[in-house]
Amino acid sequence: MDAITAHRSTALLTDRYELTMLQAALRSGAAHRRSVFEVFTRRLPNGRRYGVVAGTGRVLDAVEAFRFTGPQLDWLADQRVVDDATLRFLADYRFSGDIHGYPEGEVYFPGSPLLTVEGSFAEAVILETLVLSVLNYDSAIAAAASRMTAAAGDRPVIEMGARRAHEAAAVSAARAAYIAGFSATSDLEAGFTHGIPTTGTAAHAFTLLHDSERDAFTAQVESMGRGTTLLVDTYDLAEAVRTAVDVAGPELGAVRIDSGDLTLLAHRVRRQLDDLGAYKTRIIVTSDLDEYAIAALAAAPVDGYGVGTSLVTGSGHPTCAMVYKLVARESVPGGPLVPVAKRSAGGKTSTGGLKWAARRPDADGVAEAEVVGTGPVPAHLEPHLLHVPLVRGGEVVGREPLEAARERHRRARAALPMSATQLSKGDPVIVTELMSGATAAG
Amino acid sequence: MDAITAHRSTALLTDRYELTMLQAALRSGAAHRRSVFEVFTRRLPNGRRYGVVAGTGRVLDAVEAFRFTGPQLDWLADQRVVDDATLRFLADYRFSGDIHGYPEGEVYFPGSPLLTVEGSFAEAVILETLVLSVLNYDSAIAAAASRMTAAAGDRPVIEMGARRAHEAAAVSAARAAYIAGFSATSDLEAGFTHGIPTTGTAAHAFTLLHDSERDAFTAQVESMGRGTTLLVDTYDLAEAVRTAVDVAGPELGAVRIDSGDLTLLAHRVRRQLDDLGAYKTRIIVTSDLDEYAIAALAAAPVDGYGVGTSLVTGSGHPTCAMVYKLVARESVPGGPLVPVAKRSAGGKTSTGGLKWAARRPDADGVAEAEVVGTGPVPAHLEPHLLHVPLVRGGEVVGREPLEAARERHRRARAALPMSATQLSKGDPVIVTELMSGATAAG
Repeated sequence: MDAITAHRSTALLTDRYELTMLQAALRSGAAHRRSVFEVFTRRLPNGRRYGVVAGTGRVLDAVEAFRFTGPQLDWLADQRVVDDATLRFLADYRFSGDIHGYPEGEVYFPGSPLLTVEGSFAEAVILETLVLSVLNYDSAIAAAASRMTAAAGDRPVIEMGARRAHEAAAVSAARAAYIAGFSATSDLEAGFTHGIPTTGTAAHAFTLLHDSERDAFTAQVESMGRGTTLLVDTYDLAEAVRTAVDVAGPELGAVRIDSGDLTLLAHRVRRQLDDLGAYKTRIIVTSDLDEYAIAALAAAPVDGYGVGTSLVTGSGHPTCAMVYKLVARESVPGGPLVPVAKRSAGGKTSTGGLKWAARRPDADGVAEAEVVGTGPVPAHLEPHLLHVPLVRGGEVVGREPLEAARERHRRARAALPMSATQLSKGDPVIVTELMSGATAAG
Repeated sequence: MDAITAHRSTALLTDRYELTMLQAALRSGAAHRRSVFEVFTRRLPNGRRYGVVAGTGRVLDAVEAFRFTGPQLDWLADQRVVDDATLRFLADYRFSGDIHGYPEGEVYFPGSPLLTVEGSFAEAVILETLVLSVLNYDSAIAAAASRMTAAAGDRPVIEMGARRAHEAAAVSAARAAYIAGFSATSDLEAGFTHGIPTTGTAAHAFTLLHDSERDAFTAQVESMGRGTTLLVDTYDLAEAVRTAVDVAGPELGAVRIDSGDLTLLAHRVRRQLDDLGAYKTRIIVTSDLDEYAIAALAAAPVDGYGVGTSLVTGSGHPTCAMVYKLVARESVPGGPLVPVAKRSAGGKTSTGGLKWAARRPDADGVAEAEVVGTGPVPAHLEPHLLHVPLVRGGEVVGREPLEAARERHRRARAALPMSATQLSKGDPVIVTELMSGATAAG
């Protein structure tokens, strides 16, 4: 059985080295040092203007479900992954620290401190892989989705990529896309689990099953009503449109075109529908669309887009480069947090210290900088701080409805400079400024 | 809660249109027509020489778990996804048909009939999304993994990409990579669920946690023994290697380098280790590797590779283009299967009919063609047929240990022309020949 069906614990969605470090740190005594881990990314995918935080709500669920079950502990013992002292620690494990960070739907930039996990080294280090898996995937999907909904303007965009993604990833992709403004998903599990509106009518197989296209359309209209969407490109498109309106009447809800030159066909089908009196019948297009294809169809008489592959694969960037780094820890029990950072050559450097972040607006209220700092927050930035509390003393305090994240994304994107939603490649649309305070100095 | 943690049924990992088609077909009566659906792909990703089938074993588990639970049925009713007759059908649903196809680990080409699902239209149509999700993702990972293990030759390759993939996809990625020759994974869930060997030692955080690198190395060696792998690029590499051997002695198992110019650093560290008498201490490299970087390191003194991002994202091709198409169905109950195919313009055509496939070897036993046919199988191809039975009358008959798929992949790849494992872009390494038989005409 696969992970999706076998159990409810998230505790083994963890890289082995986290438990190895835990064991060694328990033995050295350093495991109990209060520590701060930070999730951030050094860069956006090449050419992207902004990132979108998604997965935060799923991280909260996953941290709550991070408990080791008996069979898991037996397996760890049997495989000698860790020693007895570490097994005892894991048996009692539940995260008791604090997490704060960017709320879901918010946009972000290189260096944005997206999530801060504070607790003992032992309790925080073993969340690394799970936290990154969720945020890296969901945020990659949300970033692509946001470009698509920006390109679509007021026209609805439907997520239908489940078949081109891992079956569990698909559910999370639908969720991330919804946060970034998609109107619905084809994935029933995403509806069941996350309450996202679902949609869908028929595939070519349904037409091929019947002895004629007319039989198929008749069966669908009788079952689903005249408001249904008929798929019109199995055989001859013009004939299918004629048959569709003949069967359903001008009240036909929509036709779907899934292949060919969509701009040309949309114009042709619109004219034909109008000639047949089906003025209100909508045209939905769904063939390998991405944000560029959506933008190119802006002037075509299209009423909605269905997006599959390019959505669930992040439109060329299927993951983010977020990392989970130790940025500060105690040297003595109860002592101050000491900033720490990797210093070797090779580019993978980081900035130590517990950080805050604010998005500074210009005089017109348009974002002009992501300010990231350690130490005291300047008074003029207080109203623009980005972090919210997510977990306090092990208790989840940051849960919110998906609609809140969706609305937050809409507002955050709208507050960026207008070039943010241009599809051409460019630098991050605002700069990240680092501000070192007293704490950073140590 | 997310899909991974909420339930055991796979039944809602389904696009809504499948249930809509089911409802309409139940009403028209066509739902009971015996039907054949085929999984195939029209093309390989640009430049790839072969594909790798992975996910078959997970498909079998997923089909077995495709049962609608009470809460799922209530939700479908509540959301009015389908009518009462359809809900009754779903409540009793279990797949009772036959599935055969390419066994897991086998290679494939454009047009290869990878999986054939035969049953009533009703029972087969609703498996579309689930079957495709599993095969498209797992096969994309396996294809990338196969290129990496081919490039690595006899050196072990370790999967460590969980943090850059959806948390459940990561587990399946580790499984697919193992089939394609990876030696181990960092992902504990993949070890627990699929029995894949796991590995892992420490991250930079472990060094940063301690007051000095020496403290960190000492703690790790005391806990894990001298055979452990020490991460040597947190501060100064040469100093870290010196400290590592000083702490662990020449019995030190390995050092890991995770940043910088890996070719240069591997040579430098090898010389240093040898100078320190640590002749048997291995060098593991792990920084953003893909098949090209692995190939470039062939002449460097490297003993093992750790691969993350590029593995779990399919090295540029995070999904396959597999589709699930109706290729034949009855016209009258108990009558012959009639081949069907989409015919509209736009390139998304398919070939109708129930198919067999064979890989024809040349006189030296090297594969020279993928022969795909309908109708009778020519006698000379009988020994080279590729399909195996997977499900018979609803019962899974094709389950096998993961090692069998791994061994099959090794043999199948070795039987291809040698240019298959060249990394440069090219056409599929063998051609696909279509052979139409009597059945296809009928």
